Amino acid sequence: MSYRKIINDPVYGFITIDNELIYKIISHTYYQRLRRIHQMALAELVYPGAVHSRLHHSMGAYHLMCNAIAELRNKGFAISEEESIAAKAAILLHDIGHGPYSHALEHILMENVTHEDISLLLMQRMNDEMDGQLKMAIDIFTDEYPKKFLHQLVSGQLDVDRMDYLMRDSFFTGVNEGVIGYDRILKMMTISNDELMIEEKGIYSIEKFLVARRLMYWQVYLHKTVLCAEKMLVNIIRRARELKAKAPSGSLNFFLNYEFKEHGLDKFLSEFCNIDDYDVLSTIKHWVKHPDKILSMLCKGIINRDLLKVKYFSRPIPEAFLDKKLEEVGLQLNISKNNASYLVFSGETENRTYNTQDEHIHILFKDGSIKDISQVDNALINQTLFGTVKKFYICYPG
Amino acid sequence: MSYRKIINDPVYGFITIDNELIYKIISHTYYQRLRRIHQMALAELVYPGAVHSRLHHSMGAYHLMCNAIAELRNKGFAISEEESIAAKAAILLHDIGHGPYSHALEHILMENVTHEDISLLLMQRMNDEMDGQLKMAIDIFTDEYPKKFLHQLVSGQLDVDRMDYLMRDSFFTGVNEGVIGYDRILKMMTISNDELMIEEKGIYSIEKFLVARRLMYWQVYLHKTVLCAEKMLVNIIRRARELKAKAPSGSLNFFLNYEFKEHGLDKFLSEFCNIDDYDVLSTIKHWVKHPDKILSMLCKGIINRDLLKVKYFSRPIPEAFLDKKLEEVGLQLNISKNNASYLVFSGETENRTYNTQDEHIHILFKDGSIKDISQVDNALINQTLFGTVKKFYICYPG
Amino acid sequence: MSYRKIINDPVYGFITIDNELIYKIISHTYYQRLRRIHQMALAELVYPGAVHSRLHHSMGAYHLMCNAIAELRNKGFAISEEESIAAKAAILLHDIGHGPYSHALEHILMENVTHEDISLLLMQRMNDEMDGQLKMAIDIFTDEYPKKFLHQLVSGQLDVDRMDYLMRDSFFTGVNEGVIGYDRILKMMTISNDELMIEEKGIYSIEKFLVARRLMYWQVYLHKTVLCAEKMLVNIIRRARELKAKAPSGSLNFFLNYEFKEHGLDKFLSEFCNIDDYDVLSTIKHWVKHPDKILSMLCKGIINRDLLKVKYFSRPIPEAFLDKKLEEVGLQLNISKNNASYLVFSGETENRTYNTQDEHIHILFKDGSIKDISQVDNALINQTLFGTVKKFYICYPG
Amino acid sequence: MSYRKIINDPVYGFITIDNELIYKIISHTYYQRLRRIHQMALAELVYPGAVHSRLHHSMGAYHLMCNAIAELRNKGFAISEEESIAAKAAILLHDIGHGPYSHALEHILMENVTHEDISLLLMQRMNDEMDGQLKMAIDIFTDEYPKKFLHQLVSGQLDVDRMDYLMRDSFFTGVNEGVIGYDRILKMMTISNDELMIEEKGIYSIEKFLVARRLMYWQVYLHKTVLCAEKMLVNIIRRARELKAKAPSGSLNFFLNYEFKEHGLDKFLSEFCNIDDYDVLSTIKHWVKHPDKILSMLCKGIINRDLLKVKYFSRPIPEAFLDKKLEEVGLQLNISKNNASYLVFSGETENRTYNTQDEHIHILFKDGSIKDISQVDNALINQTLFGTVKKFYICYPG
Repeated sequence: MSYRKIINDPVYGFITIDNELIYKIISHTYYQRLRRIHQMALAELVYPGAVHSRLHHSMGAYHLMCNAIAELRNKGFAISEEESIAAKAAILLHDIGHGPYSHALEHILMENVTHEDISLLLMQRMNDEMDGQLKMAIDIFTDEYPKKFLHQLVSGQLDVDRMDYLMRDSFFTGVNEGVIGYDRILKMMTISNDELMIEEKGIYSIEKFLVARRLMYWQVYLHKTVLCAEKMLVNIIRRARELKAKAPSGSLNFFLNYEFKEHGLDKFLSEFCNIDDYDVLSTIKHWVKHPDKILSMLCKGIINRDLLKVKYFSRPIPEAFLDKKLEEVGLQLNISKNNASYLVFSGETENRTYNTQDEHIHILFKDGSIKDISQVDNALINQTLFGTVKKFYICYPG
Repeated sequence: MSYRKIINDPVYGFITIDNELIYKIISHTYYQRLRRIHQMALAELVYPGAVHSRLHHSMGAYHLMCNAIAELRNKGFAISEEESIAAKAAILLHDIGHGPYSHALEHILMENVTHEDISLLLMQRMNDEMDGQLKMAIDIFTDEYPKKFLHQLVSGQLDVDRMDYLMRDSFFTGVNEGVIGYDRILKMMTISNDELMIEEKGIYSIEKFLVARRLMYWQVYLHKTVLCAEKMLVNIIRRARELKAKAPSGSLNFFLNYEFKEHGLDKFLSEFCNIDDYDVLSTIKHWVKHPDKILSMLCKGIINRDLLKVKYFSRPIPEAFLDKKLEEVGLQLNISKNNASYLVFSGETENRTYNTQDEHIHILFKDGSIKDISQVDNALINQTLFGTVKKFYICYPG
Repeated sequence: MSYRKIINDPVYGFITIDNELIYKIISHTYYQRLRRIHQMALAELVYPGAVHSRLHHSMGAYHLMCNAIAELRNKGFAISEEESIAAKAAILLHDIGHGPYSHALEHILMENVTHEDISLLLMQRMNDEMDGQLKMAIDIFTDEYPKKFLHQLVSGQLDVDRMDYLMRDSFFTGVNEGVIGYDRILKMMTISNDELMIEEKGIYSIEKFLVARRLMYWQVYLHKTVLCAEKMLVNIIRRARELKAKAPSGSLNFFLNYEFKEHGLDKFLSEFCNIDDYDVLSTIKHWVKHPDKILSMLCKGIINRDLLKVKYFSRPIPEAFLDKKLEEVGLQLNISKNNASYLVFSGETENRTYNTQDEHIHILFKDGSIKDISQVDNALINQTLFGTVKKFYICYPG
Repeated sequence: MSYRKIINDPVYGFITIDNELIYKIISHTYYQRLRRIHQMALAELVYPGAVHSRLHHSMGAYHLMCNAIAELRNKGFAISEEESIAAKAAILLHDIGHGPYSHALEHILMENVTHEDISLLLMQRMNDEMDGQLKMAIDIFTDEYPKKFLHQLVSGQLDVDRMDYLMRDSFFTGVNEGVIGYDRILKMMTISNDELMIEEKGIYSIEKFLVARRLMYWQVYLHKTVLCAEKMLVNIIRRARELKAKAPSGSLNFFLNYEFKEHGLDKFLSEFCNIDDYDVLSTIKHWVKHPDKILSMLCKGIINRDLLKVKYFSRPIPEAFLDKKLEEVGLQLNISKNNASYLVFSGETENRTYNTQDEHIHILFKDGSIKDISQVDNALINQTLFGTVKKFYICYPG
């Protein structure tokens, strides 16, 4: 059984692989590419430990899926071996379509296509290679499989993806307050009408989960310095395109020049499978010496961690204020106001603690009744938290 | 320097003692008595790890006080060496007046006197012994010392007592969800107008702290089985008094017989300093064989962990329902309805997540303004959480 | 399935009970008694967190047994459901015969009988009660079951008992250096010829395990202050017997007066099942006021943690030195030299890192060969460590 | 005080910066380059969590230095503020001269120069920039400062460098068995005759430290798969040089073409400060499509984690065996035997647990005597462990 492996994981101890298909997926070059994509993009500029990869995260999510399936089976819910493998494959592959620096560059390098779209395309390609062995995994991923809870475990309000990224990101950043009671949540999972639910006794763990997520968003994912660095990254790509700057990486050039619009899907995917954080960062290092002052300045900023100043406000930044800053910087650096806008810019970011519109964490009570977590007695998660919280930022040279 | 010690603590690593007065307090027989009082009374019947002592908790709180003072000094706030020692002495002694099984028996063994009253009496006695060396510690404890924040560190909304018990209780129970970011909260502490505050960047850690506390209350401290066991303990004392049952422990007899009402304070305190969980539990073991069926049944229940059934409701238990249960049990055990009421009883318990009446966690913003944690923008802790949540329970033989 | 439970354990997260027999054992009054016996006797006088119970330890060992069996089954070794339950029952009950303060008083309260003997007697009694359901568990415990490795998991060089106590004791004391890679050791377990072995890849984990144990012995179990306190405990019992002092606990009197020699086994066992740390410690508290100076002094010492001075030497204490101390103390306290010997005494204690005589941790190499851990190439555990290390102590009033 | 910062560290909680010079060092572009150098080179191919950077490690070592100095000062040893800052600066900068993939490529990219040499050169350059503020730090680094123990804390048998890398590498790999009692070791540090020593009570912690290091070497640093991947990396560089293959990274070309031999030190250092793991890995990705079969194969192997087979032996690989493999592979791939030697190769690797030649961990006994850890009574670390343990490996296409 050469495909039997145990892998050390600092978050959960050991991750076990004991199935041939799972082993083949992990060994696949598509999957191995995730090694070279940071799970948290540039968050490491603030949290130096946050350098873990998407490969590691998806292995962790796979581990939680193994546990979730074991718990549900122990409670008597039928999950066949084939379904089990398919759900595990689906979670391993759920992030396969992430490009370099994941969310930070997602809508810049490739427009109008999400990482989920690409994940699906790549899964289909692998499925062809593997003679259809991933068919059920794809059905679960796209929510076309009848046992809906399997899809919910892959992608839902309480999916193993979220549980792993909260656990893993808080572990690697050292923000212990993001730690959730994942093992208790797994033990409280149940199924009713093919839907994933949480037993009554798990209410406080779910509240804790939502509050931990809220904290991680504001303290880590949307940390003002992280946000600023990622906006600088976006501006580097925008500026490079404007200048038609050439990257030392062929794959990056492909995406910079919108060549994917001219070539077919095959070429697109083959270039996509070739690009990762290393292409982008080594290009940025290259451009530190670019003759264009703007591009060079932005690249130096990322490489030397000499970032723009950034401030958060609870109201939109007044146009006049932004304008004044633009002028100042334009004068100071002797650049046009339009060019200054790569260095002085404002925007908004948002998050919500719980969204009753499309989020539904259902609690199954002992009497058989079902309530949304926001509807239980004395709910911590109540309507005052439903609105989207926006923060407005401005960045400019310090 | 024979009073220099490091003590292993599983929660914080090492606790350091480096002052003679602190060493003398810890060596004092009043303090050593806390070794024999469980921090969490009968919670160990549900959480087998929860057997840590009040001595350990108050050492932990002392450790956090050391850290809090170091942080505040680093930020430039003046705390003299004498004040530092006094604050540390005060926190070490804050629980010295706890009787056996702490809160569970607090208002039963001794009526109309709180553990804080006794703590003060014992601190005064020790102060006399120690030639007034505890004067400032007592002033801090009773909030008569001008630098109000020192008292707030000992006893306030964010005192080191709460921080330690949440950390320690979640550690020993294994309820990881009660873990708080104590080190971050300490780093976010600041002082304004002699009052303890939290810096703006610490808001999410405070929310997390309040949610962890909420969870610990409902999941651990007020766990229905723990509550039931502690009510049985109370009924054992009540029944023993009714029967004038004799305890093998002289000190326990003293309190059972209300002798403290006849004797002076000296005798009261000397008996008090003699009594701990061992007197109560060994007496309960003794009464397992007591001829009174009720007393024996209750005692057996505790010793063999054969507890009454308990159920929580969100509305008061209807009188009629209780009555019916009382009759049933009376008939079954061939005892009077009055006697049955030791085994069949109802009541209510309550908790609130945050109390704007008397709780005030103040946030100091960068612009110098101060807001209550419940008043900041998009507060998690908002008015829907201010009410007291009550739960109603009924216990009866299973 | 009312016997399905999950129990929070700070060491392993959750312990799962999912079998009726296991549930009945845990609920049994014999087992519940272990709640009142400290796993580490008086070690809490040095390590304040070390207050965990034998009940908690044996639950932890049960948890490791569950994992060990799951791993071995995954590797293809046949273990029937009946064998699995029996092995789990055996480990749950392996310590059931421990008396108050376990090892500290083991050979004092009852002579010529070990806790293993009593464990067996109690298991047989429970087996009778349970209509023979414990038959296989007893066979495994006594090593009469053909699959020898099941006994080795309960009691051997790498049994789950040792693994749990090292993990648990280092956890509760906070001596992190005693932590072992228990999960890796479990994953490296294998079976050859019905004997438990470790795979080649696990060699370093085993070395680590032996070094952690060595460290725990000298730093914790045989810590000089712990040793001194436990010797004082022994002397309290000896002195009480000499004085025919009466304990407030009937069961303790039974053992103090050697009544077990006059009564039959039934009476012995019923008293044994009644006695625990609470009888001993509440008696010691009672004797603090005993008129005998020696007894009172020893009891005060334990209660107030005012212990004798203790020193370790690598050579035996010279008779003359001891004699001089005895005389000094006799004079000082105005007691006979014979009486002084309760307060001034010497002795030896020993430990060995690995014992090739009766210890055998076998490593199974990939080529099928088997070697003792002390025989592998470049072994850390080599003959220079085989000898017994003795330390000699002397205790006397400080 | 804009240079006051706290940084989250998952290993120690928080790292505090509170000095302007320290802040300037950390902000320096030389230091920020360490962000892009993996602490553990290619170990992440086996331990997916092991992706932490040299920047993170040196911050951790800085944190331990802060603690070590605080402990020594508490014990009464004089360390001036200037010395304290200098020691902290020295440890922050100790790894500044590491090139891409650190040890794995150290002697390949640049011959006859160690990373310590380059560290010193860069420190001197920074010292010039900073008007001599690093003078004392350099003296400590080069062991020219009179208080020898400061150098020993930076670089010695028990320096904070080793303590941090053992802690950090075991943390990020998840190999918990490498965890050491760093806080206890720090508390046991003392000074005698300006030399760093360990108090008697710390003996077991030191043994534990040496055993943990031994385990980390064989289980992690010299893990056969890690070793194989790093040898493949070396062969990529060697093959590229043979082919005069061009890298997309200018800095890498500079070192590939030995241009540093022709240019002066200035050019050398400026290119050095520009090169990191990103240059090497993005070049390897580029060469995946290189026309040379050998180079392409090796590069694909690294990128897709499709590594050569590797085996360890305790004896040298017989020439004949290697030869046969070379021939087989030559035939199979249709390449010359010489070319095959990039894919089929053998070698040796070694480690020793403790080296009495140049390692000296001194124990200071209470009576003032000093012994080497290998000379104390019943030493775990004894002469049977002094020899160098060699392992011999062979790698070839699987």
